[in-house]
Amino acid sequence: MPLDPDSTVAILAHEKFPDRAKTAVGVLRYADYDVAAVLDRDRPGTRTADHVPDVQDAPVVADMDAALELGDLDALLIGIAPIGGGFDESWRADVRTALEHGCDVVAGLHYFLREDEEFADLAAMHGAELHDVREPHPDVGVSEGVADEVDADVVLTVGTDCSTGKMTATLELVQAAREAGIDAGFVPTGQTGIMIAGWGNPIDRVVSDFTAGAVEEMILEKGDEHEMLFVEGQGSIVHPAYSAVTCGILHGAMADALVLCHVEGKEVIHGYEEFELPSVETYVDLYEDLAAPVSEAAVVAGMLNTSSVEGDAAAREVLDAYAEKLDAPATDPIRFDAAEVLDALR
Amino acid sequence: MPLDPDSTVAILAHEKFPDRAKTAVGVLRYADYDVAAVLDRDRPGTRTADHVPDVQDAPVVADMDAALELGDLDALLIGIAPIGGGFDESWRADVRTALEHGCDVVAGLHYFLREDEEFADLAAMHGAELHDVREPHPDVGVSEGVADEVDADVVLTVGTDCSTGKMTATLELVQAAREAGIDAGFVPTGQTGIMIAGWGNPIDRVVSDFTAGAVEEMILEKGDEHEMLFVEGQGSIVHPAYSAVTCGILHGAMADALVLCHVEGKEVIHGYEEFELPSVETYVDLYEDLAAPVSEAAVVAGMLNTSSVEGDAAAREVLDAYAEKLDAPATDPIRFDAAEVLDALR
Repeated sequence: MPLDPDSTVAILAHEKFPDRAKTAVGVLRYADYDVAAVLDRDRPGTRTADHVPDVQDAPVVADMDAALELGDLDALLIGIAPIGGGFDESWRADVRTALEHGCDVVAGLHYFLREDEEFADLAAMHGAELHDVREPHPDVGVSEGVADEVDADVVLTVGTDCSTGKMTATLELVQAAREAGIDAGFVPTGQTGIMIAGWGNPIDRVVSDFTAGAVEEMILEKGDEHEMLFVEGQGSIVHPAYSAVTCGILHGAMADALVLCHVEGKEVIHGYEEFELPSVETYVDLYEDLAAPVSEAAVVAGMLNTSSVEGDAAAREVLDAYAEKLDAPATDPIRFDAAEVLDALR
Repeated sequence: MPLDPDSTVAILAHEKFPDRAKTAVGVLRYADYDVAAVLDRDRPGTRTADHVPDVQDAPVVADMDAALELGDLDALLIGIAPIGGGFDESWRADVRTALEHGCDVVAGLHYFLREDEEFADLAAMHGAELHDVREPHPDVGVSEGVADEVDADVVLTVGTDCSTGKMTATLELVQAAREAGIDAGFVPTGQTGIMIAGWGNPIDRVVSDFTAGAVEEMILEKGDEHEMLFVEGQGSIVHPAYSAVTCGILHGAMADALVLCHVEGKEVIHGYEEFELPSVETYVDLYEDLAAPVSEAAVVAGMLNTSSVEGDAAAREVLDAYAEKLDAPATDPIRFDAAEVLDALR
């Protein structure tokens, strides 16, 4: 993938920046390559910093032609995902323009760009590449149970449900660790994380027999390069649909420490409202007991999304209550700071 | 698939029948379609019953031509799997002969027969079909968490490791239930089970996000047709490589009862000998605690492979010890009878 620290990219987020463009905002906040422009035909003439705090500042432009006027670009990223993961035909002109200028295109859609005949032809003609990050690379295999042999301390985020901030918590921990002088690496497991990191395998798309193996492979690849590795978790170990992915990551990562991510006030599984979340204490027991026979790991810290709580003082109170249930320190990495729990992970 | 009670098939098991032909023996023991012949070029002129007890009796012949001389056949099954799942070129002539006579060919290899140009051409020419049972059908999706809504009582076999007799236990329970007058159905999850049942999805080959969904789909398909459904489990919940599959089946099946399968004397995970098996009591807790938030299920019986124990009296002793650890009745379904634990499942 063309996404290394020397790269310069544009991000397509038409009509959805920033609130419905999770990938675009994630890249602007956490990626270590340059974003030269965001494409949103509803907001040309503004800047990213006008819409969302703590991100790379870049102009918002109407289309790919306008982005290219700002200078050379290595890639166009599709930074939004409609429900269902389809390709919106209103994006076609921008993708075409990118390819005609030799820019790679990176997408995390269910619809694979490389299977689109026009895009495949244009890419071949102009020496550009199409990267569909939802497609696992084909040579993954079964886990050998050796991820614990890497030099780095491995920290895995786990959750009480999907969308409990595992990717954000992981990336905030990486930033906090680096600010503390630790050589920290990030292991992505989902499409947005992969776009931010510029590498990685989408674990939820891997053949189920290879779930743990695909995680192990990534940890072996990076585990001797860093002091600490922060692995992005997925789903929840008691999710009616996605627990297989969570379990495979838990056993494939063989982490030294777990961080439990939760959303204050959440009581049922999103989209499966007849299933109540068990207690925080039950999650701690489930994750620790299930990890132990493969590789012992304790929940040593918690991350809580307190955005539903008004006022920092009240947020501190719910964090204290969460920490007590965990018997470990907890923070809200967006409202406060991930650094508050970093000591517990070392 | 052409494998219904009216079908007549031959099974290819060259040079490996019966000891290294697990699929062939499973089909001979449990399938409800007729096996007209087994192909083994090392043992022509013998009969299946000469080699293995409690199976359909059928002649062993040298090749597919000899099998066809016995009468019309609906299909040829590949009943052996070399390490790696490749296609052995010494089988090509028999597959060719089958297709030329309009026989379907059913295989559970990693090598897909339908991607073999010669076989695909022959099948098209003679109106035969190629069935690769390791390939999931393409329209599986995510679980909706509704498998518990079927009329049948659902029983799932779970294990302390791979190869602990989960498929055998499941099929022996189906037979015992039917002998007791219960309308019992079998839900296969692996290639041999699928060949025996004549339908089903190989759960270990499904995209990991759809693991639970693929199991749920099968239970919804059969769950209102039977009084009891017996679901074939896979792997182990603490297997370093395959736990994702186990976890997806556990949550997708939403079983009413679990049966824990173990091999007497087994202390470490096969192929992963540095990982010790936790205690039987720990397995019971892990499976029950992990199932509960999605759908409560207790381990209500155990199955123990006592083939390493000499003498039935000694086998009874180890079964009693296993039953005590489980706090539930236990049997060896091959040495004794699955019917011994049937009452506990109702």
